[in-house]
Amino acid sequence: MHTTLLSFCAGDHGPWRVVGQTTFIGAPLPAASFLTVDEAGKDPGSLWTLKGFASNLRYTTAEERTRLNARQAPLGRPGATHAALIPIRKSERWWALAQDERRAIYERSGHLAIGSRHLPAISRKLIHCRDIGEPFDFLTWFDFTPDNAPQFNDLVAALRETEEWSYVDREVDIRLQWTGDRGASH
Amino acid sequence: MHTTLLSFCAGDHGPWRVVGQTTFIGAPLPAASFLTVDEAGKDPGSLWTLKGFASNLRYTTAEERTRLNARQAPLGRPGATHAALIPIRKSERWWALAQDERRAIYERSGHLAIGSRHLPAISRKLIHCRDIGEPFDFLTWFDFTPDNAPQFNDLVAALRETEEWSYVDREVDIRLQWTGDRGASH
Repeated sequence: MHTTLLSFCAGDHGPWRVVGQTTFIGAPLPAASFLTVDEAGKDPGSLWTLKGFASNLRYTTAEERTRLNARQAPLGRPGATHAALIPIRKSERWWALAQDERRAIYERSGHLAIGSRHLPAISRKLIHCRDIGEPFDFLTWFDFTPDNAPQFNDLVAALRETEEWSYVDREVDIRLQWTGDRGASH
Repeated sequence: MHTTLLSFCAGDHGPWRVVGQTTFIGAPLPAASFLTVDEAGKDPGSLWTLKGFASNLRYTTAEERTRLNARQAPLGRPGATHAALIPIRKSERWWALAQDERRAIYERSGHLAIGSRHLPAISRKLIHCRDIGEPFDFLTWFDFTPDNAPQFNDLVAALRETEEWSYVDREVDIRLQWTGDRGASH
């Protein structure tokens, strides 16, 4: 039993302060002030909690993984006091596609290339939640130093222009700043 | 929120009678007498409950799906009074492989070809449960008429000889017979 559910809990306190919340498509989330990321369950006083799990690779090939691993940096580096939580849902049309059809769109969209351009500046983690009845399919989490915030904006702007993003039917972009000792967070 | 958890609940009553339970590899499950398959939660009086969800295709290509759909029959046909529940876990070595490596093993193993040989005689459903902290990764469910039981034995014997199955580290094979009106079951 390898699974650890990770929770993203919005409320009136927490180590991450919300500095921006933008709904790109679909229903918004209630405006949050603070966010806590942890492996515990829902805080009873929270505004909302999104949860999910890390999983095996769904599209990345062995060669792509080797190239990514050579360049990417872990989350939680000293100075990486800026973060983004971007919950995403894809349409039923996307999920009805077979594996090779989804991989082809991912490839044509240059998803990996766009992300790789911003390594090691932008660190990321992909959390899955479609299969557990959550309102989103993925919770994407990123952290970076303040001077790399413009790079992060370029990254998400480029992804939003892709064919793959035409299948996204709900996306909320939440920007965060760390309020305490960076060492203690994810 | 598309997810429906499906439960396989073993106990001292239920519409499916257990007629055989064999552990092929790894820890056994407590010996069951009856099984209930439904969308509800755990029966408080049950011996064990395994649960999981249907999900999007993980390996099948569009062309393969078209060929499968042209041949396969739905579960719960009149006369399909025999069934099998085969919970399977794959090793950490399998899950650490990238998508293309897992697909290559699936292909070399002739997984799809072996299953296709027995269509439409054997109907199947794949339930996922690795990502929700269950003791198995998959719950595979099959039904067939009594005269197709030998075909089903050929099917699982052939799969167990494959390279893919060298990554299976827990497998229990539970055979069942329907005790009531076949129309009411999955």
